[in-house]
Amino acid sequence: MSVPPRILATRLASSTPFLRVEKVDLEFSNGERRTFERLLPSGPGAVMIVPMLDADTVLLVREYAVGVERYELGLPKGRIEAGESVEQGAERELREEVGYGAHRLRRLAALTLSPAYMTHCTHVMLAEDLYPARLPGDEPEPLQVVPWRLADLHTLLGREDVSEGRSIAALFMAREVLAGRLTP
Amino acid sequence: MSVPPRILATRLASSTPFLRVEKVDLEFSNGERRTFERLLPSGPGAVMIVPMLDADTVLLVREYAVGVERYELGLPKGRIEAGESVEQGAERELREEVGYGAHRLRRLAALTLSPAYMTHCTHVMLAEDLYPARLPGDEPEPLQVVPWRLADLHTLLGREDVSEGRSIAALFMAREVLAGRLTP
Repeated sequence: MSVPPRILATRLASSTPFLRVEKVDLEFSNGERRTFERLLPSGPGAVMIVPMLDADTVLLVREYAVGVERYELGLPKGRIEAGESVEQGAERELREEVGYGAHRLRRLAALTLSPAYMTHCTHVMLAEDLYPARLPGDEPEPLQVVPWRLADLHTLLGREDVSEGRSIAALFMAREVLAGRLTP
Repeated sequence: MSVPPRILATRLASSTPFLRVEKVDLEFSNGERRTFERLLPSGPGAVMIVPMLDADTVLLVREYAVGVERYELGLPKGRIEAGESVEQGAERELREEVGYGAHRLRRLAALTLSPAYMTHCTHVMLAEDLYPARLPGDEPEPLQVVPWRLADLHTLLGREDVSEGRSIAALFMAREVLAGRLTP
């Protein structure tokens, strides 16, 4: 096993209301030194929900994504707010974005975005036994809810508006768990 | 289908050598206005490689990730350099990080990290018919190459050092393509 590098120093390189960049000076076990940059977390992390309307139907949302300047179809998600547990954040986002609550929530995974330069972690929750329950969200326009059969996951992957790695990973993992092939 | 919002203005909010943040003023079709932040790309994008040593064995790499302050096990990847095609970038990263070249490269997917606030796109390439070929990389320490059977993907997902969403998505997609269940 490799000996991890030592962090010699960290300092804030830039900061905006949502995105903060930190510089990290590192010394690797072979004596090599590097300064890397990383994005700091903006709160307790994020939650992504795989809401199952029935044993095979997942509820996706279609939302405008300014990073890629188009609508993206994927799983509902959002930031966990201060003081919330992962489960509370998942339940709130599910009500705000999809209009459902869940009687059963299970942790599927904790996914990183780009561990080399992001501290960001997304907790993926499998939501089952849904019931209608709506909370007002802060979205600028209502999200379109799109039911999709997990049996048709391959068709979904061929769509140009389905591109988010963690959303695709979460759908595959949910399919494996629901089929009894993977234990979360 | 929803009418996409209009971008009213964009301006640089902060900038470091690797990470640039832009503010975007948007007007949605219902008249709602928002200012969002997004990370700008630092080049022509990134490439991630699924290198198959044989029909079932993928070559993973174990690399220190300062975002999460531990070693992460995942697929080899890196930035595409100016003037490189996706294929050229994949071939170079494969030689630098894994010590192999590939006689056959196929595009599997183009994955985004977080389309809501990142422009970042990772081109995922399936690499087959490998042969030993080494290029010196700029890594501070040599990466550990870890062969893994795709038939044991479920065991991999249980490891604490396997967390990257796009890496997990790419492994599932490669498994489906290699089994003839998905056309890239």
